[in-house]
Amino acid sequence: MPQFLTLLPPDEARALLLSHLPAGTVDSEPVSVTASLNRTLADDIHAPHPLPQFERSTVDGFAVRARDTFGASDSQPAYLTLIGEAPMGDAPAFEIGAGQCALIHTGGMLPNGADAVVMLEYTQQIVGAGSPRPNEIIYKTGRKDLATTKTEIEIFRAMAEGENIIRVGEDVAEGQAILPQGRVMRPAEIGGLLALGITSARVSRFVKVGIISTGDEIISPEESPKPGQVRDVNSYTLSALVEKSGGVAKRYGIIRDQFEALKDAAAEALSECDVIVVTAGSSASTRDMTADVIRSLGEPGVLAHGINTRPGKPTILGVCNGKAVIGLPGNPVSALVNGYLFVAPVIEKLLGTLPRPIPTVLARLTVNLPSQAGREDWWPVNITVNPQSSIVKYEADPIFGKSNLIFTLANADGLLRIPPDAAGLGAGEVVEVMLL
Amino acid sequence: MPQFLTLLPPDEARALLLSHLPAGTVDSEPVSVTASLNRTLADDIHAPHPLPQFERSTVDGFAVRARDTFGASDSQPAYLTLIGEAPMGDAPAFEIGAGQCALIHTGGMLPNGADAVVMLEYTQQIVGAGSPRPNEIIYKTGRKDLATTKTEIEIFRAMAEGENIIRVGEDVAEGQAILPQGRVMRPAEIGGLLALGITSARVSRFVKVGIISTGDEIISPEESPKPGQVRDVNSYTLSALVEKSGGVAKRYGIIRDQFEALKDAAAEALSECDVIVVTAGSSASTRDMTADVIRSLGEPGVLAHGINTRPGKPTILGVCNGKAVIGLPGNPVSALVNGYLFVAPVIEKLLGTLPRPIPTVLARLTVNLPSQAGREDWWPVNITVNPQSSIVKYEADPIFGKSNLIFTLANADGLLRIPPDAAGLGAGEVVEVMLL
Repeated sequence: MPQFLTLLPPDEARALLLSHLPAGTVDSEPVSVTASLNRTLADDIHAPHPLPQFERSTVDGFAVRARDTFGASDSQPAYLTLIGEAPMGDAPAFEIGAGQCALIHTGGMLPNGADAVVMLEYTQQIVGAGSPRPNEIIYKTGRKDLATTKTEIEIFRAMAEGENIIRVGEDVAEGQAILPQGRVMRPAEIGGLLALGITSARVSRFVKVGIISTGDEIISPEESPKPGQVRDVNSYTLSALVEKSGGVAKRYGIIRDQFEALKDAAAEALSECDVIVVTAGSSASTRDMTADVIRSLGEPGVLAHGINTRPGKPTILGVCNGKAVIGLPGNPVSALVNGYLFVAPVIEKLLGTLPRPIPTVLARLTVNLPSQAGREDWWPVNITVNPQSSIVKYEADPIFGKSNLIFTLANADGLLRIPPDAAGLGAGEVVEVMLL
Repeated sequence: MPQFLTLLPPDEARALLLSHLPAGTVDSEPVSVTASLNRTLADDIHAPHPLPQFERSTVDGFAVRARDTFGASDSQPAYLTLIGEAPMGDAPAFEIGAGQCALIHTGGMLPNGADAVVMLEYTQQIVGAGSPRPNEIIYKTGRKDLATTKTEIEIFRAMAEGENIIRVGEDVAEGQAILPQGRVMRPAEIGGLLALGITSARVSRFVKVGIISTGDEIISPEESPKPGQVRDVNSYTLSALVEKSGGVAKRYGIIRDQFEALKDAAAEALSECDVIVVTAGSSASTRDMTADVIRSLGEPGVLAHGINTRPGKPTILGVCNGKAVIGLPGNPVSALVNGYLFVAPVIEKLLGTLPRPIPTVLARLTVNLPSQAGREDWWPVNITVNPQSSIVKYEADPIFGKSNLIFTLANADGLLRIPPDAAGLGAGEVVEVMLL
């Protein structure tokens, strides 16, 4: 069994494959920022102007000169004369002089002369003869009163210069690098660009992944299987995975177990797509055929034939003329798990996506799990919350069943990894679960 | 400050809001299973037939009667006569009798009479005079040889009945509940349904969320702000969040700070959408206006005005005639964080989505973080990998900056939660980070 001697550890196999693919090689295309969710930026983006563009208050209160509040406290308030209200959406038409203040709202533009804002709750208003009124009244009636009545404001806190203010450029400075090439657009990135008036951005186009199913026993899901036939599952699970990962899948149908037929389909896919995935028929001859086709399609050909992982040992990784060609086992669980392990990272590399922490949960394993030392295992598990536990609040329950039952995966919350250097895991151990 | 006395803890506020909304209330619509990624199933689905539909081999090897291998070992092999090869995609035309075996491939249909499959590596072929040939040769030449030569197979392992076989219905039995209403479709679910020939399924239609921005200072992102003006960010960050959460957003534009204008826009949105989100102008009067509009739109009106969280204290939760109306602060960080906390769960409830573990990472906090006891804080953090650490392999670096700077969020990997019962967190503590 010489094949067994060449089994690569999955991390090493993935690194080998990725090392043959240049990062961020797909073209870019412009998209509206409002429609850019989950797309990968193709350029570094710089701020065209500072944000904010004017000094703004972060609270509701009174714009003051900080030095006028020196030493102010509950027992010794400072008294300032209210001269106006900073309008929302416009520059104040007045300037704050010594001993003066102005009503200002959260987000309002700071009047000239002011350098701090006292929060409303540390102030009190005195009207005419000095009868105090709740702040809410001045606040609601707003500027009407201000023109007709001389109003004093009591300030109960000493303010530092800049307090409760956002300065010009405090969010981002003009020209600052704000989002890097490779960033995946999330709601916050969309907001950041629009705040700067950037309404269009270049993103990596979708990575095109050609998917080929092989196997004399495989029929289309619409058909009724005769004895010995099974419906094609892999073309569709892998298409969905490609879509999830920032690609667009093109299915090249179900190819019979014939070298020339598979080679022709693969060559067509290679000419139209960035990546090809072939899910093998179940028979050993078909599996070998995929490797032979990869060798025939271009250099360097097969990089790894056999990965030390379960499920997924028969996985084949190849590169033909700069494009990844991946042969996955026909077993639907194995095909999908190895799609997560090898196809998704290839798509990310071609998009040029910057790495992000992988969403996982830490969970306490409920039972012992055997594993063969040297092999990486991926077990489907269900995750339940253990309310007793504080830090590791989840428990991971492995789903037992033969490794090729698609519903063991369809009913799993995630996949638990048993690392190659572990000879199994014990009940109670804390494990990392990759959510599906 | 009577408002402060009524601040609800966020978990309680969310539960209160959700308790007024019936689960899974949006209509369902049929979709092609191949296009159902991320949609929520509207019905329980049962298996129309068992899976697999025939007994299949899980390995490459020889189909045997287990009893014929009794006691077989390396030193005392059993000898069986090879009578044929089980074809892929068809029922074998022969039956295994006493002392017989047949070549079978992974996924092949078990011939009648056989009840186990011996893996190829535990067998050896003897041709004619008994000269052993490598298994690979018979394996590749296949049935050609079989017709012409009487071939004996040495079996070196005793097999149990059922070994290396998947039985009919072992994945799912006929009529079995396979996927529950509320399940979100992932690649594996898509594969499971297609394996059973289920090519169409009913899913919850997208939840329609109407989004209204208010504030005299707010302009459209395409416009150039004059002093005191800022571009609308919230309509778009929340639209993206809605899209991410299984909804479809309709933007009702930027409404001036006038009660009647806001009421009209909200009433229109309420008649067309399942959920309304109003992001308040920054001024206190606008914030109160949102609450007044919610009260005017229907019963029970405002459920919570003020949440004990940072950012997000001014959040307003309401229900009008069975539809959630949520008022979010104008501050873009606060609006988006509270969108994650309140809008996304409402969408999930209306879709009828079954809960899944939230993708988080556990990380070790790098610095002390202060917090006010009783208040829940959400800090933007960056996540880095600490290669020294085994179980908790990430470190969380808080991003400091005033809470309303959108780029603190755009540059964060996630949000760290400081629970209400903690008076801050210490450096080195293990914390849970919600990935954005």
